[in-house]
Amino acid sequence: MFNLPRRLVAEFMGTALLVGTVVGSGVMADKLTDDVALALLGNTIPTGAILVVLITILGPISGAHFNPAVTFAFALRGDIKVSESGLYIVAQIAGGILGSLIAHVMFELPILQLSQTVRTGTGQWIAEIVATFGLVATIFAGIRFRIDAVPWLVGLYITAAYWFTASTSFANPAVAIARGVSDTFAGIRPIDVPAFILAQLIGAGIAFLLMHWLLRSSVQDREIA
Amino acid sequence: MFNLPRRLVAEFMGTALLVGTVVGSGVMADKLTDDVALALLGNTIPTGAILVVLITILGPISGAHFNPAVTFAFALRGDIKVSESGLYIVAQIAGGILGSLIAHVMFELPILQLSQTVRTGTGQWIAEIVATFGLVATIFAGIRFRIDAVPWLVGLYITAAYWFTASTSFANPAVAIARGVSDTFAGIRPIDVPAFILAQLIGAGIAFLLMHWLLRSSVQDREIA
Amino acid sequence: MFNLPRRLVAEFMGTALLVGTVVGSGVMADKLTDDVALALLGNTIPTGAILVVLITILGPISGAHFNPAVTFAFALRGDIKVSESGLYIVAQIAGGILGSLIAHVMFELPILQLSQTVRTGTGQWIAEIVATFGLVATIFAGIRFRIDAVPWLVGLYITAAYWFTASTSFANPAVAIARGVSDTFAGIRPIDVPAFILAQLIGAGIAFLLMHWLLRSSVQDREIA
Amino acid sequence: MFNLPRRLVAEFMGTALLVGTVVGSGVMADKLTDDVALALLGNTIPTGAILVVLITILGPISGAHFNPAVTFAFALRGDIKVSESGLYIVAQIAGGILGSLIAHVMFELPILQLSQTVRTGTGQWIAEIVATFGLVATIFAGIRFRIDAVPWLVGLYITAAYWFTASTSFANPAVAIARGVSDTFAGIRPIDVPAFILAQLIGAGIAFLLMHWLLRSSVQDREIA
Repeated sequence: MFNLPRRLVAEFMGTALLVGTVVGSGVMADKLTDDVALALLGNTIPTGAILVVLITILGPISGAHFNPAVTFAFALRGDIKVSESGLYIVAQIAGGILGSLIAHVMFELPILQLSQTVRTGTGQWIAEIVATFGLVATIFAGIRFRIDAVPWLVGLYITAAYWFTASTSFANPAVAIARGVSDTFAGIRPIDVPAFILAQLIGAGIAFLLMHWLLRSSVQDREIA
Repeated sequence: MFNLPRRLVAEFMGTALLVGTVVGSGVMADKLTDDVALALLGNTIPTGAILVVLITILGPISGAHFNPAVTFAFALRGDIKVSESGLYIVAQIAGGILGSLIAHVMFELPILQLSQTVRTGTGQWIAEIVATFGLVATIFAGIRFRIDAVPWLVGLYITAAYWFTASTSFANPAVAIARGVSDTFAGIRPIDVPAFILAQLIGAGIAFLLMHWLLRSSVQDREIA
Repeated sequence: MFNLPRRLVAEFMGTALLVGTVVGSGVMADKLTDDVALALLGNTIPTGAILVVLITILGPISGAHFNPAVTFAFALRGDIKVSESGLYIVAQIAGGILGSLIAHVMFELPILQLSQTVRTGTGQWIAEIVATFGLVATIFAGIRFRIDAVPWLVGLYITAAYWFTASTSFANPAVAIARGVSDTFAGIRPIDVPAFILAQLIGAGIAFLLMHWLLRSSVQDREIA
Repeated sequence: MFNLPRRLVAEFMGTALLVGTVVGSGVMADKLTDDVALALLGNTIPTGAILVVLITILGPISGAHFNPAVTFAFALRGDIKVSESGLYIVAQIAGGILGSLIAHVMFELPILQLSQTVRTGTGQWIAEIVATFGLVATIFAGIRFRIDAVPWLVGLYITAAYWFTASTSFANPAVAIARGVSDTFAGIRPIDVPAFILAQLIGAGIAFLLMHWLLRSSVQDREIA
């Protein structure tokens, strides 16, 4: 219903506002308190809230992926053309980086930064696999059973995943790249980003396979047989 | 369906309760803790919650703007007559000021105050542009795609914007004026208010222009061509 | 649809669980932290959450008042018979007191207590008028415009009102009485209860009058003329 | 509509993610702050959020019990066959234990642990009876009146119950067992688990009896007579 330029602008703008929220609220929280749990709460609540908003208002335009791992999973299902998925991912990464820059400008920090926060190791990678698995499973089952609730489901899932995963759940390659160029609360050392992205794609792939089977009803089983 | 006096009372009452919540919860939070992040959380959650309530219960009467920047954006779209929009803005400003006064009375503070909190500088102004852009974009897209969800979208958007913008997101000229007459947690020096209002109107204007294009479907494009 | 005994049990059980949550979460929060703002947050979130639950699950049975001020306002509108409203109020007060006792048993505190927390003065009384006015206005307008959302509206309203009113918003005579017999975080000196109840009834009365006018559409105005 | 293997996988996966969230967010919160109320908040919000998600996305497959006490209550009502309920409970317990193990792996803790946290005494047991009573009552009345809202009701109920019960509301035998094998914030000494489970089943039984009567409308009363 909406043409490709509008869809790409929606992906760009949505990812920019998402990363702007993740990075900006991290700066704000970090500035206001010494308690790291409280800072994480001040990072979690805005992120969950903005996800509900952005997916509701931009979903009808572009599908509101804002996330190359999600676009990848939709491409695996054939829900989006491979050529378009490439453009989506470019728009997401560009939007994400802009989001970090806007946050820096608003908080009067140096615009261009590289994060020095170490985020590596088996625990973190497994956490990213789990986090992205859960995100994609939530989206696929949500679309199947309660499409009107998907914005809420994603917002609430990420709210939980910030806390239950050891990595605070990036679960999004575009967000990971964008957080690489921000040496703030939400940052990640650029050298640690590729492993995060690999883990995220693995998690998305596992979710694709499991949900492909799990969401097939008995009626569909019989039709296949 | 509701006549103009009722609509103006709804705008007046809604803005009064909104500002009463912003200022009152700021006083309460500030009084109870030394941790500023926690105080901001105690300011954020009530503000987001009351917005959902007020927009749900007064929206069917007046549209529940409670915000001259929103009324301005609706006037740009021709959704409200210019003459009525002027009356709306008067009701909003008067209601907002009353909200500050009621908060002072409840907490037994001097009724009439002028804030001394400095809020100025490029970062803050850009923050107000971004905050108001996001608010108006949320409202316009929300009305287009999920009108029943608009109260939630606005409440959640402001919840996020309190944290991701450097200014804690006033995004509302009537609220900015009302916070100017309260020397409490949520206050802003009166001399800093005009620049905030200008930034808010710029943000609203940008949102109007972008969403005018973004929300037009391909079918509408063809009809125009 | 449900007979009077079931309706009274619903009012009794709902008010007991509501007060159990208010008092119990207050004890828990107070025990775990020295930061009073954090304790209030640990008191607010459970109270708002349980209100959504209780009004959703018991509303279809009894209307889910759990509050003599609300029953009073419904009686003013003629929505409930005066004789039944008296029984409702008895069930609410009895349920509320049971709620305090259950909280004491769970936390292994003396079962029978009298609060020593002073809550008095003009600011507090005005706060209770404002709080109850807002609550009843929310309920009346919510029923009119979005009856399915009323549980959410009340839960969110009270979430906000805990913070924006100087009294932390009791707004409920049965809850005020029940908190009088609990010398814990949520307590109130019994001698301070009557003035709170009076203020609550005044707030409910003002809401009845204002909303009676505000919620009448232009069509209804013409029919009256 | 979904065959038994898929239903059991849904119960297994759902309980694993639920316990992964309870234990994982407990570890995260405990690591980041010394304030126990803040840690409990960092445990509560993710748990409530993930419950809404999991019940929405897996409810249409298996009913989303994730809880032997809930399966027990449904079996009492004849909503699930006794043979299937046994398999459900096995899947829930296995999933719950896996959830604890995954949390340990993500946070690079020893995989196999036994909790040393003492949770015993009359207050705690009564708390578990109350907590499980409220949970089952919420589910039964929610299914009766607002089936679409059940995920929210359960998430919000548990959010409240973490705070208003002295035991922080386990209310779930599978979760209790799984928390027994995690010596972290959410842990419980294995020797204390059986009494918790007994209390939970008592609470579920009381809810079954009360709601059986309370949810019967006057029309149904007459049909029975």
